Amino acid sequence: MPGSGDGERTEPRPSPRSKRAEIVAVATKLFGENGYEDTKWADVATAVGLGPTALYHYFESKQQCLFEILVEAIEDAQAEFARLTEGEFAVGLPNLLWGTFERDDREVCRARVLVAEQGLVRHPRPQPREEEARLRAFALVKDYEANWRDFLAGGMEAEVIPRTDPVLLARALIGIHNSVWAWYRSEGEMSPAEIAEFYVPRMLGIAGMPG
Amino acid sequence: MPGSGDGERTEPRPSPRSKRAEIVAVATKLFGENGYEDTKWADVATAVGLGPTALYHYFESKQQCLFEILVEAIEDAQAEFARLTEGEFAVGLPNLLWGTFERDDREVCRARVLVAEQGLVRHPRPQPREEEARLRAFALVKDYEANWRDFLAGGMEAEVIPRTDPVLLARALIGIHNSVWAWYRSEGEMSPAEIAEFYVPRMLGIAGMPG
Repeated sequence: MPGSGDGERTEPRPSPRSKRAEIVAVATKLFGENGYEDTKWADVATAVGLGPTALYHYFESKQQCLFEILVEAIEDAQAEFARLTEGEFAVGLPNLLWGTFERDDREVCRARVLVAEQGLVRHPRPQPREEEARLRAFALVKDYEANWRDFLAGGMEAEVIPRTDPVLLARALIGIHNSVWAWYRSEGEMSPAEIAEFYVPRMLGIAGMPG
Repeated sequence: MPGSGDGERTEPRPSPRSKRAEIVAVATKLFGENGYEDTKWADVATAVGLGPTALYHYFESKQQCLFEILVEAIEDAQAEFARLTEGEFAVGLPNLLWGTFERDDREVCRARVLVAEQGLVRHPRPQPREEEARLRAFALVKDYEANWRDFLAGGMEAEVIPRTDPVLLARALIGIHNSVWAWYRSEGEMSPAEIAEFYVPRMLGIAGMPG
């Protein structure tokens, strides 16, 4: 209330973009810590201080919000993939494998949500904004795997790793990497860097490249 | 209606045990094909020809039914583990890895549900039968991992595989195996045996045992 004279300062209104980012951040944290299934959409509304109607302005539903989180997570993973695999394959593959373990607490939480819930991208949704976000997330999941496949096929072509089915190799490497985020907790005994020390040489072994 | 004389034969009533097994089978199929989140408990009721009240006699909720499915899946996996790892480690490890890929369509579907939903065992439930089933499933998930850990530690002790952290090694092997069931579909191009041809030698490599 500007000019009400009660001594309170008027806070600047957050922009729609920053409010949206706040909802995504809060929802990611709640989904990651308490599980997607057990998080109520109303809990997200409460945590960001919005009523259901205002929240609806940003997201149609909990499910749409989840798909938007998955879209952002995979878009970031795509950008990271492009950055880490620059240059020749013999350098790019180790770079990529080590790089995918460099995760801060926020990214670990988001990776856990991605791993736990990405199966949902396969199932059509009735609501239009949900379905639109789902289709984007689904396409990105497939693109991401295709990027790995093409990259690995390039390494076979260049005779840096032995020839094999590049789709299965991509799935094996993505699968073993993803499995970490299902059990890893930031408050546990090991850092992502320590886990990488165990996993990366073995992942190079899966690809047939001595560590 | 016995003796109603309308010419219909009276079907023998299924025993409670076989009805329960039927519910579990139908729910596993629906959860595996359409996803747990997207399957309504009422769909399960309809598919087995029971009303909500009759269904409640068997399971308190969809969530309790899921946990019972997970319990049975892990109990079967435990029995398989014990059978395959009999004898000396150098034979037991390959036996175990090959054996875990021997899955018929029903088991593939159940494995998919297990992999997709086992994260739910970490989150307490409000209803007593749900919570009781959750705790059993959670304990079994931990026992199963501990079995792998102890088995692998035995192989290190016997100097068949190199010494390393047996917990991380157990998680890596379980993780890469589980990741298969997230994408594998029975109607696809490959059989579990063909997938095993790709995965098992690489899993032996992860453990440091030449294939």
